Amino acid sequence: MNITLVQAEKIITIAKEKAIAIDTKMNIAVVDAGANLVAFVRMDGAWLGSLDIAIKKAKTARFFDMNTGSIGELSQPGQPLFGIEHSNHGLITFPGGVPIKNAAGDIIGAVGVSGSSVENDHAVAETGASAI
Amino acid sequence: MNITLVQAEKIITIAKEKAIAIDTKMNIAVVDAGANLVAFVRMDGAWLGSLDIAIKKAKTARFFDMNTGSIGELSQPGQPLFGIEHSNHGLITFPGGVPIKNAAGDIIGAVGVSGSSVENDHAVAETGASAI
Amino acid sequence: MNITLVQAEKIITIAKEKAIAIDTKMNIAVVDAGANLVAFVRMDGAWLGSLDIAIKKAKTARFFDMNTGSIGELSQPGQPLFGIEHSNHGLITFPGGVPIKNAAGDIIGAVGVSGSSVENDHAVAETGASAI
Amino acid sequence: MNITLVQAEKIITIAKEKAIAIDTKMNIAVVDAGANLVAFVRMDGAWLGSLDIAIKKAKTARFFDMNTGSIGELSQPGQPLFGIEHSNHGLITFPGGVPIKNAAGDIIGAVGVSGSSVENDHAVAETGASAI
Repeated sequence: MNITLVQAEKIITIAKEKAIAIDTKMNIAVVDAGANLVAFVRMDGAWLGSLDIAIKKAKTARFFDMNTGSIGELSQPGQPLFGIEHSNHGLITFPGGVPIKNAAGDIIGAVGVSGSSVENDHAVAETGASAI
Repeated sequence: MNITLVQAEKIITIAKEKAIAIDTKMNIAVVDAGANLVAFVRMDGAWLGSLDIAIKKAKTARFFDMNTGSIGELSQPGQPLFGIEHSNHGLITFPGGVPIKNAAGDIIGAVGVSGSSVENDHAVAETGASAI
Repeated sequence: MNITLVQAEKIITIAKEKAIAIDTKMNIAVVDAGANLVAFVRMDGAWLGSLDIAIKKAKTARFFDMNTGSIGELSQPGQPLFGIEHSNHGLITFPGGVPIKNAAGDIIGAVGVSGSSVENDHAVAETGASAI
Repeated sequence: MNITLVQAEKIITIAKEKAIAIDTKMNIAVVDAGANLVAFVRMDGAWLGSLDIAIKKAKTARFFDMNTGSIGELSQPGQPLFGIEHSNHGLITFPGGVPIKNAAGDIIGAVGVSGSSVENDHAVAETGASAI
């Protein structure tokens, strides 16, 4: 079970519409079940540094099959996963990465969004992931 | 002068149509004037290893404002730029990367394509770059 | 004194049985006295991001000849080894990495486990390390 | 379609037997359809530098769905893919990496072998890939 490009493009289109609706400029990345990039867009004027963050959020969400923000709660100082960000060539563990499931509930990829507050990033990623 | 996302998406759409027309499965990347990724797609079934190559071709074409194949002629053993691929976290210097110019002739980005023969890769990149 | 492949395979077999017994899906890595990988398995459905973490836990445990969790206590903010994870291409300093000793008490390698809670990861690693 | 751990372990067992039969000491790596490591063994006394080469051969074979030696013919000076090794964090393009297909002919992973001559490396990889 793996995401198709048509699905990834739909997710990006819907996520981009959400980004515009809430007046933000986002980097949006979609990875497949193997955590490899399938599609990406950077909206005009979006933070340049968010390019890598969006891709890393998508990868992180698929690496552990959960929202990136959930990992971040566990990676704080004193928490069980402190320092996990040093693995896998760098993880991003704050909100904005969300797994993508098919109708059967199988995880087929993940979407990562970066360019605004983490709340907005997550909202756009969630909207994208819900598109299929 | 910098490429917009609308322009990058048009390039990818046209390049993807060309890829389908010649029965290939491509990774297609567009970078901006700063050599940073603007848009990317990996067609279903395209070689996984071509993901990184497509992005590196686009970056290489913008790094030196010429087709990647032209650099490759100069980087052969005994030629002036032998070993240049070791710079910039890895260049790809065979055909498939093409600068993108606006109507005034200014270079505003580059497109990189990978997934078939270098002739096909270049043809798809050239078609994409000509779309604007 | 160095671990043999037969020993490493026995550790992985025992660790895998423990992982199944506690209903988890683990990545299990064994490194030798030189901190280089000897054997590795990723159980079907185990987190993809735990691949790198399991290997880094095994290396970390051998790099400093102690359980990874012990290093993590010293790498918290304000503690003596804060930031040590930045060394050696990335350490993992939460539980799940355990040194492997021979009958004479010499350290001959280490095992790293990742795929569940840090308590489960450590339990599986400890079970594996005790197998020889 | 993705390789299972049971399949990967069978491939490694068969490849190891072949390595012993021809009196060599090998590093043997199996990756899945996403080019991520599933299983690995390093035989006692095998070259340490071949650890990374075996893994990179397996990844390279899956990245381009062909034997690594076939890529190497195209990456020589003056050939179309000269310098391709600079992509994907380093490719290995001499023999020893072979795609793994299921009964239906789908590529579900790849095996990489390193530790002897390239002819021996390829023979062991081919034997492993044929095991399923």
